[in-house]
Amino acid sequence: MSGPICFLSDFGSEDGYVGVVKGVILAIRPMVSLVDLSHGVPPQDVRAGAFLLRTAVPYFPAGTIYLAVVDPGVGTERSAVAVRVGGCHFVGPDNGLLSWAILRQARAVAATVELADDALRLGAGISAVALSQPRFWLPTVSATFHGRDILGPVAAHLSAGIALGELGPAVTSIRALAYPMPMRRADGPEMVGEVIYVDRFGNLVTNLESGDVTAQAAIRVGESVIRGLSPHFQQDAELVALVGSSGLLEIAVPNGSAAMRLKLGVGARIRVVAPPD
Amino acid sequence: MSGPICFLSDFGSEDGYVGVVKGVILAIRPMVSLVDLSHGVPPQDVRAGAFLLRTAVPYFPAGTIYLAVVDPGVGTERSAVAVRVGGCHFVGPDNGLLSWAILRQARAVAATVELADDALRLGAGISAVALSQPRFWLPTVSATFHGRDILGPVAAHLSAGIALGELGPAVTSIRALAYPMPMRRADGPEMVGEVIYVDRFGNLVTNLESGDVTAQAAIRVGESVIRGLSPHFQQDAELVALVGSSGLLEIAVPNGSAAMRLKLGVGARIRVVAPPD
Amino acid sequence: MSGPICFLSDFGSEDGYVGVVKGVILAIRPMVSLVDLSHGVPPQDVRAGAFLLRTAVPYFPAGTIYLAVVDPGVGTERSAVAVRVGGCHFVGPDNGLLSWAILRQARAVAATVELADDALRLGAGISAVALSQPRFWLPTVSATFHGRDILGPVAAHLSAGIALGELGPAVTSIRALAYPMPMRRADGPEMVGEVIYVDRFGNLVTNLESGDVTAQAAIRVGESVIRGLSPHFQQDAELVALVGSSGLLEIAVPNGSAAMRLKLGVGARIRVVAPPD
Repeated sequence: MSGPICFLSDFGSEDGYVGVVKGVILAIRPMVSLVDLSHGVPPQDVRAGAFLLRTAVPYFPAGTIYLAVVDPGVGTERSAVAVRVGGCHFVGPDNGLLSWAILRQARAVAATVELADDALRLGAGISAVALSQPRFWLPTVSATFHGRDILGPVAAHLSAGIALGELGPAVTSIRALAYPMPMRRADGPEMVGEVIYVDRFGNLVTNLESGDVTAQAAIRVGESVIRGLSPHFQQDAELVALVGSSGLLEIAVPNGSAAMRLKLGVGARIRVVAPPD
Repeated sequence: MSGPICFLSDFGSEDGYVGVVKGVILAIRPMVSLVDLSHGVPPQDVRAGAFLLRTAVPYFPAGTIYLAVVDPGVGTERSAVAVRVGGCHFVGPDNGLLSWAILRQARAVAATVELADDALRLGAGISAVALSQPRFWLPTVSATFHGRDILGPVAAHLSAGIALGELGPAVTSIRALAYPMPMRRADGPEMVGEVIYVDRFGNLVTNLESGDVTAQAAIRVGESVIRGLSPHFQQDAELVALVGSSGLLEIAVPNGSAAMRLKLGVGARIRVVAPPD
Repeated sequence: MSGPICFLSDFGSEDGYVGVVKGVILAIRPMVSLVDLSHGVPPQDVRAGAFLLRTAVPYFPAGTIYLAVVDPGVGTERSAVAVRVGGCHFVGPDNGLLSWAILRQARAVAATVELADDALRLGAGISAVALSQPRFWLPTVSATFHGRDILGPVAAHLSAGIALGELGPAVTSIRALAYPMPMRRADGPEMVGEVIYVDRFGNLVTNLESGDVTAQAAIRVGESVIRGLSPHFQQDAELVALVGSSGLLEIAVPNGSAAMRLKLGVGARIRVVAPPD
């Protein structure tokens, strides 16, 4: 028995695009378990998709096939890839969408990857191919819906046991998105991070990790200053900072929206000033 | 074969939270059938979640495991519970979210429950435990995502056949939300109810039941008066009252939204005046 | 093994209506594969539902049962039908919702259908019944939720192998929606089409097909003129026309929304002027 297909896209749920891809998959692989990760990625927002895929990787079962489609370049010369690492597969356009998730999975299983500029170079324990074999696609391929015509069918065939090497020629690197690393200022005890995702609750998810923030730090976001970390969404504070479920620092308003309260979004700066010793 | 897991939350569908919980469940219980009841509960609206869960109970199969997560107090001292009644299980935070559904299920199978202030006391035919056994959770538990780390895994283990008593110590009551009972005015033939839910179509679902409204009654809502009940969403009236699919009185605008037309929402009063004999 | 149930409705995902229908289906047919096509059809928009169902038909597996519920006349005298053609079944209200999909499926499998005014007459290779046998419904049928009480249960029983003829008396026609055919002006080389759907990305999907537009044609939409067809969503143009994934001409703004840019929606005219020979 193979694992589920975990499906992420920016297709939304109104138009039937997601359902049609599932129809195609079930025609190839009738009993596969299909799990939606999200189809609410903002249209063509490859970075938001990459972030969400990265959050899922530690939690899905062995053998999961990740099918991800956020693809502003569909129909152009960008290629599509399938990657195998640690018993899981990733299928999607080669535009960086898969990169953060693959990096995380590779580190979890000690596969060798190297992040160089906008490419992820693949070493021991990880394999990738460019999708080039139309016999694993639908007979007719549109210019605008490779999720249905190429990527979905390929995910289904992988689930059915087709070997990765059948799908196309091996590649030694895939495109990667630069991950915004927090910076430490040279002249002071200050870390500068940024908001990398805003969730439905209005929580501002940052690129700062728990080790970047001490219990006594002052956290500046917009015009506000937050003193120290909260253990949870405590209900008697107006604005809190805490280590969220993804292991990253989040700014939240208990029972409210930090994004709306602070009028901040992706890219907003977060400054963490450690107290003087 | 066990029943499906029926999953309700306020996670929304954009952020991948729902998908991650499903990944965790499938890692424990690969072939379980997962059904989304709704993930569009307004953030932290425990009452709306309780209402929706209550509507589902008569319609799901024997053996269903209800997993419900609307949890503004996540990470604080509120406990989490699992309840078994009539062959079904309910898993969620102990904040009242489960109470209306459990009350309905208990009555359907003649289990003994007693609603006392803000608690549901459990008697014959119904059992509950406080979740305290980390061996049925993820190895690391975050402060903010118990759906992923505790509640989802527990639902999966119940589906896999773990006995309720393994999960933690028995409790004899769970927290309950007060249900807004309609009132009859002492000085006249008038029932006063209220809107308890507004659905996507803008229908105003009230706490009045069919027995509260006679065919000749005058129903006052906002500035409007509706005479009698309609058998369906008849298309030649501006505003109708009818017994909806949940067995409750609804106020509707055929092919339109009563909520928008009347500018009313949850809590709005509905007065039913029976005609003089 | 039967095929999946492909479920389309205007129920939205907030209110639990979809989940409850699935609960009912799983109580009858525990292991069936349920696929959501869309539940985001605008409330009571039968045409949008008919369009989406039509796009799905070529892509779902043999044996699929299409369950479609966009039903403004629920509870009135409109009947409900089940149709079998080419190994697939369609279940829904008899209000035209199913008609475009059935027409497409009938043509694909060479069944005989004839479109006459607002009816689809059924001939060789296609069968339909009016749903009249309450033993395949829930014991209590509400006036407002036939998806839960009649249509869902019937789809589940078909999946379980009940013969179509058991469900009610045969009918020889079902209601059809008129499909807006593009027109060719008698006095010139001009095709006039219209927008029939707007998707989440703001793409304007028209009723014009690839044969209606030559590579050198001028396409007038609102105040704009587009010269010729693009092979894909090319990223250096402000406004493009291309043959979309449904085989229909679409007007798009690369990485943007044509609907918002042009302030146009369903019904907007598209004029295609072929160049002089």
